[in-house]
Amino acid sequence: MAEGKFVSLIMAGGSGTRFWPMSRKDLPKQYLNLVGNTSLIQQTAQRLEALSSPEDIYICSGESQKSLLQKQLPQIKNLILEPAAKNTAPCIMLSVATFLAKGYSRETVMGVFPADHYIRNQAAFGEILNAAATTARKTKGLVTLGIKPTSPHTGYGYIEATAQAASGFSPAKRFVEKPTLEKAKEFLGSGNFYWNGGIFAWTLGAIEEALLKFCKEDFEAIQKASPSDLPRVYQSVKSLPIDKAVMEKASNVFIVPAEMGWSDVGSWSAIHELEAPTDKENVGDNTHCHFLEASGNLVKAPAKKKVAIIGVSNIIVVDTGDSLLIVDKSHDQMVRKIAEHWDK
Amino acid sequence: MAEGKFVSLIMAGGSGTRFWPMSRKDLPKQYLNLVGNTSLIQQTAQRLEALSSPEDIYICSGESQKSLLQKQLPQIKNLILEPAAKNTAPCIMLSVATFLAKGYSRETVMGVFPADHYIRNQAAFGEILNAAATTARKTKGLVTLGIKPTSPHTGYGYIEATAQAASGFSPAKRFVEKPTLEKAKEFLGSGNFYWNGGIFAWTLGAIEEALLKFCKEDFEAIQKASPSDLPRVYQSVKSLPIDKAVMEKASNVFIVPAEMGWSDVGSWSAIHELEAPTDKENVGDNTHCHFLEASGNLVKAPAKKKVAIIGVSNIIVVDTGDSLLIVDKSHDQMVRKIAEHWDK
Repeated sequence: MAEGKFVSLIMAGGSGTRFWPMSRKDLPKQYLNLVGNTSLIQQTAQRLEALSSPEDIYICSGESQKSLLQKQLPQIKNLILEPAAKNTAPCIMLSVATFLAKGYSRETVMGVFPADHYIRNQAAFGEILNAAATTARKTKGLVTLGIKPTSPHTGYGYIEATAQAASGFSPAKRFVEKPTLEKAKEFLGSGNFYWNGGIFAWTLGAIEEALLKFCKEDFEAIQKASPSDLPRVYQSVKSLPIDKAVMEKASNVFIVPAEMGWSDVGSWSAIHELEAPTDKENVGDNTHCHFLEASGNLVKAPAKKKVAIIGVSNIIVVDTGDSLLIVDKSHDQMVRKIAEHWDK
Repeated sequence: MAEGKFVSLIMAGGSGTRFWPMSRKDLPKQYLNLVGNTSLIQQTAQRLEALSSPEDIYICSGESQKSLLQKQLPQIKNLILEPAAKNTAPCIMLSVATFLAKGYSRETVMGVFPADHYIRNQAAFGEILNAAATTARKTKGLVTLGIKPTSPHTGYGYIEATAQAASGFSPAKRFVEKPTLEKAKEFLGSGNFYWNGGIFAWTLGAIEEALLKFCKEDFEAIQKASPSDLPRVYQSVKSLPIDKAVMEKASNVFIVPAEMGWSDVGSWSAIHELEAPTDKENVGDNTHCHFLEASGNLVKAPAKKKVAIIGVSNIIVVDTGDSLLIVDKSHDQMVRKIAEHWDK
């Protein structure tokens, strides 16, 4: 970061069932090479390493993912291990408590990054993050990156800005979680709404104040807990996303608009969108894929497998050797059901 | 056979590309367990073994299939090995020459059976074959089983009967190879047309006479050739189907109608039709197939592989471990192209 101290938190708690058969209970989405030749969490770390030193990058995750993390990101030594998965609010509380205990000043800006998102434009990401850090310092508020909507997506949270963000940031007016299609279309048209991408920036002082205001009991319990007490304390804290626990209640939330080729990589269709320049394009990840009268398909298969797709369009094929998924793109949200059925 | 001597010829010359990735150049269709737990050629032999003794069952095939034949049908010792694949007329000439040389009388009825067809009703097959043998003896003609058409199929040869076969057989009027859809519909409506199933019965005397009449040069060359001469002789004989070489020219062809659940198992779709009681039904050949909002699909996959088909209908999925085919049923004739591309 250009000016002032910055600490990054990568949140890697997800257990992901949407990428079956590649993702498994013990191999969540963020550890998979879904787009490109490195995993999403490796790409997330790489983006941050270009902006700050590894000593100021922390990963908050479950105990069970420790060996995966050490294997994929050996350079990052700062692991904040949660005794249980409790959504993002407790993860952030534990991390803030850790940073303060380690002696980071309350002026330090903390950036929060989901481990399993994709960002195409690294340069834009750097600039936007700088703007977010500057805004966090200047306003002492809670800054969230607002992703410019490109479709009336009904699966995302939306944030309304009070004004067009000409100055580089604007106060948030309200949060709307997963709107109806009608509402989503209205939001898309208005120009004042952003997708909530779950990327935040705030000073440690600002988030400490907010946590003490909205989640005092849980935050103080976590802060006071000794390592041996933490599992017991964690059992009693509320499982909540930071959006619900803090952001929707706070009056000092600011939006920094972010156009950087963001995707939350929410399903197999999203992978196809990221990899195919046009909708009609077939994407095969090995050199033995053969398409005949077929379009808009995505194939993931073992390197030497011969794959022929004939007369079929808009499907996702994922072959992991022991499992095979064939799903129409319009049905990719149902992949969870299969994963839950088989991968208990 | 109930009365008189009967000798069976199973023709196993096909090299099949329509069942890629299960069929390969060195593993043609007839050796695959496409319907049920035995191969099509094993089922063909089994049908004949129920009607005659193994000593009177012969298989005509290429040298390259010898070890496959010995493995799948160890009980059948009578192999007539062709030096080259030359379609069915030379195969029948070589077999007739072999039978006569072995001392079968000219009164013996010879039945000819493609190795790669499926017949659901064994009892009906037995009765029909008896009727065909009786007709062959009585008329001294060339008898062909006429399959009652169930659709205006444009890929089959049709035979027109001179009259409804009330007496159990009727003289053939003409052969029509692969008609237009319009013609095929007309044939289906008339009730006088049958599919040419490629199953024949004739006395050795009758077929000898016909071969001497229509293919004298080739037949005599084959008959006179010593085993060491045969490869050279075979190179010069015309590659023709018996239908074109003899049946279409002969005036003593008789049709015995056959309703016995016949299928030439012409493509992957045919397999689905044979295995699915209704069109909408999903068929998975292993216990780990899971279908969600999917219908009319056929899946062939390794026994322990987990397969999920979601939101996709009317496709064929064949996973052989090293290869994967996904084809819409309407496009299954294109599978050849893939096979030719990869399996040279």
